[in-house]
Parts: sequence; structure tokens; C-alpha cells
Amino acid sequence: MKPGPGPGLQMQEIPVPEPQRGEVLLQVKATSICGTDLHIRNWDPWAADHVRAPLVVGHEMCGVVVAHGPGVSEPPVGTLVSVESHVVCNRCAWCRTGSGHLCPATRILGVQRDGVFAEYVTVPAENAWPDPPDMPLSVASLQENFGNAVHTASVPDVAGRKVLVTGCGPVGIMAIAAARAFGSRSVFASDPSRYRRDMAAAMGATLTIDPHAEDLVETVMTATEGEGVDVLIEMSGAPNAAADGFRALKAGGEAALLGLFSKPVTFDLDDHVIFKGATVHGIVGRRLWDTWYKMRGLLRSRAVDLAPVITHRMPLDDFEAAFALMASGECGKVVMFPDPDDADGPLTQG
Amino acid sequence: MKPGPGPGLQMQEIPVPEPQRGEVLLQVKATSICGTDLHIRNWDPWAADHVRAPLVVGHEMCGVVVAHGPGVSEPPVGTLVSVESHVVCNRCAWCRTGSGHLCPATRILGVQRDGVFAEYVTVPAENAWPDPPDMPLSVASLQENFGNAVHTASVPDVAGRKVLVTGCGPVGIMAIAAARAFGSRSVFASDPSRYRRDMAAAMGATLTIDPHAEDLVETVMTATEGEGVDVLIEMSGAPNAAADGFRALKAGGEAALLGLFSKPVTFDLDDHVIFKGATVHGIVGRRLWDTWYKMRGLLRSRAVDLAPVITHRMPLDDFEAAFALMASGECGKVVMFPDPDDADGPLTQG
Amino acid sequence: MKPGPGPGLQMQEIPVPEPQRGEVLLQVKATSICGTDLHIRNWDPWAADHVRAPLVVGHEMCGVVVAHGPGVSEPPVGTLVSVESHVVCNRCAWCRTGSGHLCPATRILGVQRDGVFAEYVTVPAENAWPDPPDMPLSVASLQENFGNAVHTASVPDVAGRKVLVTGCGPVGIMAIAAARAFGSRSVFASDPSRYRRDMAAAMGATLTIDPHAEDLVETVMTATEGEGVDVLIEMSGAPNAAADGFRALKAGGEAALLGLFSKPVTFDLDDHVIFKGATVHGIVGRRLWDTWYKMRGLLRSRAVDLAPVITHRMPLDDFEAAFALMASGECGKVVMFPDPDDADGPLTQG
Amino acid sequence: MKPGPGPGLQMQEIPVPEPQRGEVLLQVKATSICGTDLHIRNWDPWAADHVRAPLVVGHEMCGVVVAHGPGVSEPPVGTLVSVESHVVCNRCAWCRTGSGHLCPATRILGVQRDGVFAEYVTVPAENAWPDPPDMPLSVASLQENFGNAVHTASVPDVAGRKVLVTGCGPVGIMAIAAARAFGSRSVFASDPSRYRRDMAAAMGATLTIDPHAEDLVETVMTATEGEGVDVLIEMSGAPNAAADGFRALKAGGEAALLGLFSKPVTFDLDDHVIFKGATVHGIVGRRLWDTWYKMRGLLRSRAVDLAPVITHRMPLDDFEAAFALMASGECGKVVMFPDPDDADGPLTQG
Repeated sequence: MKPGPGPGLQMQEIPVPEPQRGEVLLQVKATSICGTDLHIRNWDPWAADHVRAPLVVGHEMCGVVVAHGPGVSEPPVGTLVSVESHVVCNRCAWCRTGSGHLCPATRILGVQRDGVFAEYVTVPAENAWPDPPDMPLSVASLQENFGNAVHTASVPDVAGRKVLVTGCGPVGIMAIAAARAFGSRSVFASDPSRYRRDMAAAMGATLTIDPHAEDLVETVMTATEGEGVDVLIEMSGAPNAAADGFRALKAGGEAALLGLFSKPVTFDLDDHVIFKGATVHGIVGRRLWDTWYKMRGLLRSRAVDLAPVITHRMPLDDFEAAFALMASGECGKVVMFPDPDDADGPLTQG
Repeated sequence: MKPGPGPGLQMQEIPVPEPQRGEVLLQVKATSICGTDLHIRNWDPWAADHVRAPLVVGHEMCGVVVAHGPGVSEPPVGTLVSVESHVVCNRCAWCRTGSGHLCPATRILGVQRDGVFAEYVTVPAENAWPDPPDMPLSVASLQENFGNAVHTASVPDVAGRKVLVTGCGPVGIMAIAAARAFGSRSVFASDPSRYRRDMAAAMGATLTIDPHAEDLVETVMTATEGEGVDVLIEMSGAPNAAADGFRALKAGGEAALLGLFSKPVTFDLDDHVIFKGATVHGIVGRRLWDTWYKMRGLLRSRAVDLAPVITHRMPLDDFEAAFALMASGECGKVVMFPDPDDADGPLTQG
Repeated sequence: MKPGPGPGLQMQEIPVPEPQRGEVLLQVKATSICGTDLHIRNWDPWAADHVRAPLVVGHEMCGVVVAHGPGVSEPPVGTLVSVESHVVCNRCAWCRTGSGHLCPATRILGVQRDGVFAEYVTVPAENAWPDPPDMPLSVASLQENFGNAVHTASVPDVAGRKVLVTGCGPVGIMAIAAARAFGSRSVFASDPSRYRRDMAAAMGATLTIDPHAEDLVETVMTATEGEGVDVLIEMSGAPNAAADGFRALKAGGEAALLGLFSKPVTFDLDDHVIFKGATVHGIVGRRLWDTWYKMRGLLRSRAVDLAPVITHRMPLDDFEAAFALMASGECGKVVMFPDPDDADGPLTQG
Repeated sequence: MKPGPGPGLQMQEIPVPEPQRGEVLLQVKATSICGTDLHIRNWDPWAADHVRAPLVVGHEMCGVVVAHGPGVSEPPVGTLVSVESHVVCNRCAWCRTGSGHLCPATRILGVQRDGVFAEYVTVPAENAWPDPPDMPLSVASLQENFGNAVHTASVPDVAGRKVLVTGCGPVGIMAIAAARAFGSRSVFASDPSRYRRDMAAAMGATLTIDPHAEDLVETVMTATEGEGVDVLIEMSGAPNAAADGFRALKAGGEAALLGLFSKPVTFDLDDHVIFKGATVHGIVGRRLWDTWYKMRGLLRSRAVDLAPVITHRMPLDDFEAAFALMASGECGKVVMFPDPDDADGPLTQG
């Protein structure tokens, strides 16, 4: 947890929380690290602005329902659940029109309320998504993050179309898999890291591009007979990658943007959007709960296999080593287990 | 050809047609039989109403460009092309707004103008769709019909969803393959014929149902935990199958109807459409030319393999045997070759 | 209220209900009669199947919040509210994906739980929709029913397009107003009743048609230069009207169906839907809560004026006379007031 | 015409052009000035890059068909027509899928081929859009430009919604009228010029904002109870106006961008697009020919009256004065008549 403002995290004993009305108490079985968690550990300006310490951090997890708060009967005690990290108000105009992912009163686990790098956590019952009992814990933990990828890949129309994914971090490579599962004809994937390009290929990219070694736009144009891709999925948050992505987008194409740029960027609205007649979709979070139903379909039908994304399993006690690994970029998802005996694969030495 | 009104077809020598302005002359390399051709041979009431004999029949084909009419330069002579059978006016409100498949002045090859069961045929240059030179001729011939399937499967949103296809004739099984390629999580397929259910399974159906041996609605409801399918693709034109299909459709689902019922039917608009909040799409032809681009993507990326659909290859001279086979229902697509040496697989004995 | 199974309604003294957790207690200020209420009074087969007597009937109303159940703080006591009559579960797949209007566990006021032809009623707090304090009570009562019309007119794309409304009962004429407000270029309206055609014209129909005196299809085709309308809004539930409506629909058009047919009908799926490439939308209820926000916009901007729809105001005690008037068809909406002093216009003599 | 590279325009005698195959010869009756024409007169960098002089400039016009090229029979000689200025190839993937406005081979009248500031011009027959014979010439001339506005207003869903238009030049104010006609509940319009704000109000803006005198974002937020507008229509091409427009857009809203920024700008993709879950539509030209049909509907139904937009009528010979007026910004549209006797209103002194 983050004991107070400033860099770093530490392990502390705190009381098991009490589930309030409408909430469930979950025992955490597995929890994975997200880029956001790195920002919070490092206490960068965004974190200083948004995080109220002291706070338990972490927001990707699966666990088992161990107690119900008043008024709750579902999911039953004992159910394995994944967790949606956005706790929304259910009363605003967004929540009431199927756009809860845009609720202005959203409180995020591990950011605005206690998170999941812990043995126990309370969440609203509706945020506890039942999983099949035989789902591997590391996959179950990943669903929240996979939801970002599925949401991104399901907004533009990718069926039978050519897609470019710029940025092959964990969400990028899961978006590659989702785009293939949704019927995209070919997925080009660009990232300067060979490690990540290899993961992209393993998740279904039909062509990987090293933008430092070759001209991204030229490569895509050659591969598409000068037409460009139908869909750009921008996951890098790097202005140059985004600009090249838009250059490689065909007129009338769609772009879905998830990667954050962290500050205003120089952007050619004329050439990239207006003259191109492009449609640009900003993507935030997951659709509540449409994306979760879509994920269920992709995983149950085995249209997407998340196993290659999970490259490391570690005890939660080794969180320092896990964060260092994440910071190196030489990994996919790192899953941590409060009880190392729960690990569904070989543990990595910290 | 159909020499005059009445049942039957016969082979006749006629002059090679001259391509008019904007047209190309094609040498037919392969041609496949459609259910419509059976109606025309049998001279049923629909045929008597719509077909103006004498006429060369047939509308599914591939061939090679052998001459250009005035004003034409593309596709070049020698190009292998598939043919879109709907010749549209390009001037009406439908043609001018991207809905050429609904042009009221449409003239169909083999129905309102000379068709493709012949050695040569003329078509407008825009109706000649260039294929890769190495595409198997039988697959190239099938594209027009595959287009019906792709159009049907691309109108509802099937990505990550559960689909029921009622009727597993050739278009039905190609729609199964297209729905899978567009990302559907599971495809249930129903047909009373075991031969067709086996083809459905070979094309990607995840569950096949014999509606004479089991209760279609119950089977689907069990397999979907009581929810029903998200999408119904109705290919049978059988009122009972359609009704059961709608019963198995979940509230808020989408239905795409292609199978023709041949006459008004008793239909429960209240329960099947209104109370269900369903959206029903009538499907006719292929989108000009959006569907063709989608097909190109599916075939080039090998997301769909049409080989299992083509069960018989025969010389065009054996057309009587080929039609008898089609009438039996114990076949997928039957492809005929004016020159038997062009056959891209073993020939069936007539 | 309906004291038990069988025809008729009677006025009874019952205790003021107690608001449960999440509910509000409302004092009814105005309540209007819907066609459904007639079915319930007459105890037709549908009513016998769906209504559990004893039951207070009625589902269109406005009122004032007078008490909160546990856990409720909004809307504040004293707020004027309209009521959404569909009480949904908020837990099923439909409720969780923005399609609460299709919730299979829906309980409707006045059908499956006590309704609003009463002095007091309890409803979930989320079903109490705050109105501006100066909204006329009769308009506020009408919103639930107006929502059917707005939902119907907002599903197809009517902006700049030609629309045909078959059936000019209260929902039909409100749909005419909504379609005009959403930008439809012209609205043709058909009904055999002169009274209703006059109301249709008052609500913005650009042409009214008496289908008994002239040929509906011919009239529409002449007025649209042989093209047909872009959108059919079917409100009559009469098979002939619906069939003519589809005949008057242009190829590629959209139909929205709200009127119930009460039994399976003979319908030409080939000509009306498939060959036409039409899209047919079944419409049920109102979108929760998208339709309510749309209504708020239409009423606040004065794009729609509901005053002409309200033709009669009566004391709730005169319910027998009010129902008789509704049964005659010679009225728009009949609004009843538990306290006649609340009437926002001259009262009609019973 | 532009006799060669460099600033300025001059009047010259040139031969009446000959209509080629598929073309019609038009006698120009009225022609209006667009911002693009100013750029070309001034020979700014964009013009130097795109215009091949010598060239007749101008692209907004109406006229009468006076001769047919070979193969043309429609529209008949004598027909009053408006002109679509984008001449497209009809063969590329865009033209063949209903996106001709994005054709990469587009040649624009007055930019890449001889334009309409002339007595006669040839255009492809399909670019000559028949008008009712009684349409005022100045309105008919304006349709091409009105099409930009209609296209912009028809891409986002404005029905029943709140809209902000930033930039009230001619296209901006026509977009205001189109948005109102398509059912928008309220249209906020911002422009620093009082002249233009007055025109905006005349065309239907419900609130006008001077961004130099008040805080645009604050004003919009107050007027929308802190929610923001559903739709932003950006017509100014001014980075500050666009940024404020995005700030005033509600989460999940849609933005349609038509105004050109002329160079890359600093833009906050995170806050304006991604976190907001916004959808941004680049708008170029008019949809071929969907926008033209929509315009026909809006004008015939009198849902939009363009008369207030036309502030000045002048003889074509006074083109220097007309351009000076346009450059001043103190005008709406300036319509020029080759034959001053054709003017449909009082002429302005040059």
C-alpha cells in the first residue's frame, strides 16, 4: 500500500474491511500489475493529483466471495469472481443511459478507494463478475485489463478489415488477439521492442514492424497496396507512433485511441482527421457491462487465449521485484499471488 | 439455355456476343448452379413471371476477360474475374447512395439478360471483379453466391456473439463460415438433412441440430443458459424453422432473413418482433461493392476456406446430371466447366 | 382497482402503502388512461393471463414525492415527478447493458404490482423522474405514454426523411410530433377516423389519409414520386394497415412496429422485408433512461407541444365515464385527477 | 480566372468548352464565393500547392443545361441544376462503397479543372443535380456549400440533443439551421463577430456567445447544468475555439470537425478525446449523393430557409468588389450573376 504521499509502496497489516450495504468482501486470489500502478508507486504528477493516500493500491484481481454486506445475495459466497475496478454511481445521466464507463463520479479501486494488492477487499456486489470455477486464476485476474483491449477492438468495425496496432504492451497485444477474434483480416503491429513484437506475433499479429528500423507508413502502404489500414488502434501514447498510425490510416478509416499521451501534443487535425474523413474514438475503461459479456464470449469460446500474455507469476510479498520487472518492459503481465500456493504456473524468482 | 417458356433447358449454338460500350466479353471458365436456376429449369410460377425466354441462364461464374467494349480499359484482357450478377443502373437514388443492391432497374444475368451457362458472356466492366490469378476456378465461380452469405453475416453484429443459422444449404453453410470469421462465439446450425448438418460442422458450426429429432428452441435455450441467441440467420425459407428461430432469439436480438418463403406466411409479429424488441434485416443480393471487398479480405486472409462447400465438379455438357444432383439435395455446390480440362479437382461422373 | 378476476373496476379504500428500501411514496396528482387499462377493465384473455387481482390498476401518472423508504435521498420530498411504469431488476444481462426495457423480470405498475389509479403509490426511487415544477400536471402524467412515441420515432433515422404513420391513436399522433421534431421532412398519417386524422394534422402530419376512402399505397406513391417513404411507423396493430404500410415503404427503408396485432397474422416476409432489404424494429416500452432524456429535451425546447393530445380532464371518481369515453375512440388522452382542484384545464362532465 | 501562378484574378474571353463523353455543358446563372476562392485569389501556400493555373476558378453555382456530350440524355436540356464540385473516378474502392467524397482521384472544379466563375462550364452529367424550376437562383447556387453544412450536421446524432457550433461563417450558420431541422434541442453558437452572431441567431441558434467577452466553457456549462453539449460542430479552424469546444463537450459526446486549421496544432488528445470517450468525425465535402438527397428534403419541406444567408448579390463583372466584401467578413454569402438581369434580389453596388 501507499502509506502517504510520495514515492514507494510498503506492505502493512490492516484490518480486514467490513462489506457495507450492497458490497461483498472478497479474498484476493491473484492480482496483476498495470501501468497505472507504476505511476502511483513512482508518485508522478498524475498520481499526486489523483491518489489520496494512505491507500491500498492495485485494481486488477480475481478472488472468492467470502461475505455479503446487507442487502446482498449474489454472487454466492464461494464464487470465483473477477473485479471491475470502476465503482460508478448508477444515478447520473451516463449511468442511466448505458454509459457507466463515463460516470463522472467514478471511484477506481487502488486510486480513489482501497485496492486489491491485499488479502481482502470490499467492492459493490455488481463489480464482482462471476467466473467459471475452472478459470485459471491468472487469466481471471487479467480480465479487467483485457476489458480495455476488448473495448478498444470492439468500437471500430474490424470484421474482414485491416488493422494497425501501434504499441505492443500488454493491452496492445490483447487488442491484437481481440481484433483477430472479431474477424480482422490482418493485423499489423508496431513496437520498437523485439520482446514485445514477439509477443504480438504470438497473439496473432500477421506482420510486426520495428518503427526504428523501417518506415512504418511505407511498410503498411506496401502491404495494403497503397490503400492504408481500415482501422488504427493506438496503444502507445507516443506522438510519433500516433502520427504515423494516422498517416497509415486510409481515408474514411476509424481510429481507436487508448494510449495516454500525458500532455497536449502537436497533432495535424487537418491531414489526420478532416481531409481523411476519419472517425476517431476515445476509449476509456470498459463498457459496463457490455464489454464483460463480450469477454465472457471470447474466453469461453476459446477465440482468445490469454496464456501467452502472462509471462511471470510471483508471490505478492515480492511486489518490489514484480514492479522492477514491469518497469523493465521485458515482460507481459506479471501476476502476484497473496498465497503463493495459489499460483497456476511456475513462480518466478524475485 | 432456355429456348422458350416452359420447363427444361437445352444446349444450343449461338453467336459469341459483342461487348457494348462499357462492357467486357468474358470466356467462362467455371460456373456453378444456384437454387434459382432450378426454379428456372422447372419453370415454376416465379420463373414464368420473371424470366423472358429465349435466354441463356446461369449467373454464378468466373472467367477471363477476352475483349473490351468501347470506353473500357479495365480489367485488362487476360484477367481472371468473378462476376457480380446484378447489373444496376447507377443513376437511381439507391445506386447513388451506396445501395445499388436495391436498384429497382436491376437486370440479373440469367434472369433478365443472357447468363453464364455458356462459353462466352458480356457484362458491364464494373461487374467483372478481378481475382488473384492463382485462385481456384471453382472458388472464383462461387464468389457471387458466397457474397449472399457474407452480406447476411455482416449486417447483424456477430462479433463475440451467439448465432443460430436455420437452413444449411450452400448459402447457409457459407454464412456459418462467415459468421465464425467475423468473430461469433458460437454458431448453432439446424437442418433436417444429416448430409447438410455434416457440411455445417465442417464449415465451423459449434453445434448442429436436427429439428425433426429434437426441439430446436429447447436445445438452443439449454445451450445458452435460457438466454437465447444474439443473432438469427434464417436461410431455410421454411415457416416453422423461422418461427422456431425467432423463439430461440433473445430479447433485443437481431435476425437476418435471406431464405425466401415463396408466399405470405403466418407470423407472430407481436411475440417474435415487437415484445422482443428485435431488429429484423431483410437481405437481398450483395452490397455493391462493399460485400465484394469484405469477401476479398476473408478469402485472402484464409479466414474462410470454401473448398469443403464444393462437392462436385462436372463438364457443362453434363448439365442435366448436374441439375438432377442439385435437386437431390445431397450435395454442396456443383461447379460446371465448359472445358472439362479446366476443372480444378476430380470430375464427377454424370 | 380490480378487486378480483373478471370484468369491471371499482373504487375502494385501502391503506396508504409503505415505501420499501429504495422506494418513494408518491401522492398521485394526475393519471391518464392507456389502451392497456381498457383491456384490464374488460378482462380480455391477455388480461386474464397477465394480471394478478386484487390489484390497483393504472400506470400513467405524475405526482409529488411525500416520503422516502430506507436508503433513499433523491428525488427530494416535494418534487413533482412523472413515473416510468416498468420496474426492472437491474441485475440481468439486459439491465446491465443499457437494455433495461427488455428485462425479463419487468414488473409493470397496474399489471404486476399496484398501480396509479389511486391517491398514493410506491415506486422505486429510480422510477420517479423529476419534472420542472411548472410543468402542467396533465403533460407530466402523459410522459410515460409519450415515451412510447419518442422511443418509436427515435429508433429509425427520420431526419430529413419521409415518414408514414399508420394508426393515429394517442401514441400515433405523439409519434408524428416526435418524428417532426427529429427532423422528418414530411409525415403521412393514415387512420379511418376523421377525429383522429384531425388530431394528426394538429400534431404536425403533412398529409392525412383515410384508408377507407382512398388507396393508401397509391396516395403515398404519388406523393413520393413513386419512391415510397423512408420510414414506416406502424401504430395500428391492424394487419391490413401494416401490409399497406410495408407496400408504401421504399426499398432499404426502416419500419418501427409498436401496435400489437394480438395474434399471429398473415405476413409477406418475402415482399415486405427480404426483397425490400428493409430493416424492421420491434419497439417495446421506453429505453431506460435514454428515452426519458430525449423527452426532456423535446419538451423543454418546446419542439413538441403535447397540449392538443389532452382532450379531456375528469375527476378520478368519474373513472367509469372516462373509460367509456376512451372506449368510444372520440378522444385523445383522458387525464383524471384524484383531487379535481388539481385539474390544469376545464373539467369534462362525466 | 487565374491566368497563371501568383495573386489576383482577371476576367478573360475564352472559348465555350465542348462537353466530352458523359458530360453536360451548363450556362452559369449564379455563382457564389467560398473561402477557398479567397485562398486561390491570394495565392497562399495551399493554393500554390494545389492549383494548376491557368484555370477558371469558382466551384459554387447553378445553371441551365444547354448541351449534352456523347452518351448523355439526363438531365434534359433546359433543366436548372446545382453543381457538385467534386468530380470523382467511380472506380476506386471509395467510390465503389458509397464513399465517393473520399475518392483519392477527386478533381475539384475551380481547383484542378476549370471552374464556374464563367458563362459556361462543362461537368459530368452526374454532377448536375436537377432543381425545381422555381428555386431561387441564389439558393440553387448555394447548395454545394450548404451540402458541407448538412453533411456536418447529419453525421453526429443531433436529434433531441444540445449542440455547440464554434465559428459562424456561412457554413457555420447553415449548419445551425441544419442541426435545428434535424431536431437538435438547442444550438449554442460562438463567434467573436457580432455580425455573424446576429446571422447565427437568425438561422436558429438558441444562444449566441462572444468568446472574447465571456467564457465559452463556463457559459455552456451553466446553460447545460454542468453537463456540457452532446455535440460539437467545429467550423472555425481556430485552435482556441476548438479546444474550448471540446472542453464544453460532455463525456461520450460527438464532435464533427470541418474548419481547417491550416497547420498542425497543439491538441490535448487525453482530455479532449480519450478520457472523454468522445467520438470525433472528420468531415470533408458532401456525401455523394446522400447529402444531396438530404438537402432536397430540407429545402422542399422548408425545414431550412437559406434566404437569410444570402446577404449580397452582384454582377460577376464586379468580382473584385465581391471578393473584397468576402475578405471583410461583414457578409453572409455573396452571389454573383454573369447576367445581372438574372439576379433574384436587389443588386449591391460594387
